[in-house]
Amino acid sequence: MKYSEMNKEQLLNELKKERERYNYYQSKRFSYDMTRGKPAPEQLELSNEMCDIKYLGDFKAENGFDCRNYGILDGLPEVKKLMGDIMGVDASKVIVCGNSSLNIMHNILTKFMLSGVGGGCTPWSKLEKVKFICPVPGYDRHFTICENLGIDMIPVELKEDGPDMDLIEKLVREDESIKGMWAMPRYSNPDGCTYSDETIRRIANMECKAEDFRVFFDDAYAVHFLDNGPEKILNIVDECQKSGNENRAFVFCSTSKITFAGGGISAVASSKANIEWYNKYLFIQTIGFDKLNQLRHVKFLKDYEGIIEHMKKHARLLKPKFDIVLNSLEKELEGLDILEWSKPKGGYFISINTIDGLADKVVSLAKDCGVLLTPAGSTFPYKKDPRNRNIRIAPSFPSVSDLAEAVRVLCVCVKICSIEYYYDKL
Amino acid sequence: MKYSEMNKEQLLNELKKERERYNYYQSKRFSYDMTRGKPAPEQLELSNEMCDIKYLGDFKAENGFDCRNYGILDGLPEVKKLMGDIMGVDASKVIVCGNSSLNIMHNILTKFMLSGVGGGCTPWSKLEKVKFICPVPGYDRHFTICENLGIDMIPVELKEDGPDMDLIEKLVREDESIKGMWAMPRYSNPDGCTYSDETIRRIANMECKAEDFRVFFDDAYAVHFLDNGPEKILNIVDECQKSGNENRAFVFCSTSKITFAGGGISAVASSKANIEWYNKYLFIQTIGFDKLNQLRHVKFLKDYEGIIEHMKKHARLLKPKFDIVLNSLEKELEGLDILEWSKPKGGYFISINTIDGLADKVVSLAKDCGVLLTPAGSTFPYKKDPRNRNIRIAPSFPSVSDLAEAVRVLCVCVKICSIEYYYDKL
Repeated sequence: MKYSEMNKEQLLNELKKERERYNYYQSKRFSYDMTRGKPAPEQLELSNEMCDIKYLGDFKAENGFDCRNYGILDGLPEVKKLMGDIMGVDASKVIVCGNSSLNIMHNILTKFMLSGVGGGCTPWSKLEKVKFICPVPGYDRHFTICENLGIDMIPVELKEDGPDMDLIEKLVREDESIKGMWAMPRYSNPDGCTYSDETIRRIANMECKAEDFRVFFDDAYAVHFLDNGPEKILNIVDECQKSGNENRAFVFCSTSKITFAGGGISAVASSKANIEWYNKYLFIQTIGFDKLNQLRHVKFLKDYEGIIEHMKKHARLLKPKFDIVLNSLEKELEGLDILEWSKPKGGYFISINTIDGLADKVVSLAKDCGVLLTPAGSTFPYKKDPRNRNIRIAPSFPSVSDLAEAVRVLCVCVKICSIEYYYDKL
Repeated sequence: MKYSEMNKEQLLNELKKERERYNYYQSKRFSYDMTRGKPAPEQLELSNEMCDIKYLGDFKAENGFDCRNYGILDGLPEVKKLMGDIMGVDASKVIVCGNSSLNIMHNILTKFMLSGVGGGCTPWSKLEKVKFICPVPGYDRHFTICENLGIDMIPVELKEDGPDMDLIEKLVREDESIKGMWAMPRYSNPDGCTYSDETIRRIANMECKAEDFRVFFDDAYAVHFLDNGPEKILNIVDECQKSGNENRAFVFCSTSKITFAGGGISAVASSKANIEWYNKYLFIQTIGFDKLNQLRHVKFLKDYEGIIEHMKKHARLLKPKFDIVLNSLEKELEGLDILEWSKPKGGYFISINTIDGLADKVVSLAKDCGVLLTPAGSTFPYKKDPRNRNIRIAPSFPSVSDLAEAVRVLCVCVKICSIEYYYDKL
């Protein structure tokens, strides 16, 4: 029987039962952290061998370049190919950078603010208003960059095959101050959503009032599947070229969740003109990136097939963790109509929606029982979820047995908050 | 006999002699590159061992942190100490970053432009004019950053113990639009000058009309001595604190010319308030820097004494190269009054001054004889040396025997240009 169909007495009975469970869990003094999408130690061990000096050989790239010395701003040719393959973009349209793709995004946006997108367009900082479309729920660090740069964020709902394109098309056609949008096309954070071909085509083709409209395509989970292989998506750079909006999209990826988190390499792909523009800007700010780490990566991972094989090992470690969470949710909550949850085929997160208005209460109740969840609201611009319902669960770091206990706590918290909600309504 | 004392016939005789030498060298089809301060392969080999996996141990920092995972934005504690020791600043005032100190300088300046220095000061991009003091000759990449950001550069002559402080004090006292200055306090690029205690004290104490005046102290060659050990300089961060201008100075260093060029780690030091400010800004733009490379560095170099021992090995390789250049110049040109040259005790360059107006001709003549020198003017803002006399020689990369030949070519070129200069005056 659903809580929504119970009378006060029935609800009080349920509440008593769940409170007893909660008290029992609390007495066990758990300490579980499901806040961040961090790889577990077993996953990191998959790449330990990459640190063997043998992968550096004579320290030379395929073109004979000594990776221990200055030179080559845009990345070793073989690494441009490798990173291009992850994003599905030709190596000629790729620049390999340092250890952080977030840093590339920030760097490009900062340059847009200070100097504009190039081609004589006005620097965004000189405009009265700059706005960005933000599919929600989304990645908090994208939103933090916008907030820090004073870019207004317009949340747009993310559906099963990408954001609400009807709404986005209408917004960008009418408002010149909308200068760009965020997008996580594969296994998005936190929903695990993958954009359909139609969504990507519509993003590439849509008519924008701002001629300097730019899409930041963060393909952070490009090869981070949980089953047999990554979902294929349309190449946004090609689609933009076909549509005549050739400079619209920048694509980003990194190996942070392929090899080492924060010890990997990152890359950006875009049109030829954008890549030339970014190369010129990079020349101003650095002599070059760490080519030894680039060499290490390409020798260890070899090629795209090598990456897929490597990611299968990650998947074997991650899948049981996702399964335990999903199975527990299903077992405890299926049919109760008090929680929705995503069933991701990849990425690092499970996204749950409580009854409207309960997310912060659930997070707080779980915290008091030793289970740390990402703060409610984090997946929305300005940390404000207007429906106060979305919570991001990061199951990668804890062990399977810890996860089992943590999700039990979560379920009890969801139940308690939901019972109280229905009780108050009566 | 000096060329300046010769008559036309004598000069023509000299010219004929030097032209014959030049033609002879030209026939040998040399190809020598003395343009960039790149370590030689033998120097890079000194650090090969650092790439051994043994230095990573269990991948843990001293505090137990797993360097393969996300976390620790400001650097491993033991690496903050190491980099702080290089700059002579306490670890609590240090942030360890990625592979490029130039990138930190650019990043901070860009933030000043967009948001100001903090504390409610106006963003520099909102001001009509922003100017920087640039000691000359100096490092071209500092000047390129300013030029790219639209910061006007005011060249100030570099003397033996630092820049002309009388002039700088006068300028900054009177002009509010002067927002900062560049400084390379040790073995400066290209002069090899080290700032005296008095110079550093005056920089820390001088009265600036702009309350948001900032000094960029690029200590790139902090431990890059050619003889027995690095010259000691006053700690600018402490001096600024003593003088009540506590947030005035940022200090930068990297291991690019200690371990691997572009494969090292970098750091910034400043006041407590500035470091907190920069940490907050870094949080917006990255999850963290490559801690595995930080760990590798500290395990390999150990401590400050370890760095000094390591730098002695570099010095043993570099000293003969500087000596061959300096000895050749002395042998061929001493007493002729046609060339001045620096006698650096460290750093990567020898700076030469031709007779006014001849630098570009010398560089061009040498190029036609297969000897590549940094383009004349490169050591000045906007690549304009008003006296057209300064040339930067980078002796680190070529072998000693190549250098011997290259400097012979250089001397002939200086002679030819100087003879023609005096001939034309008669």
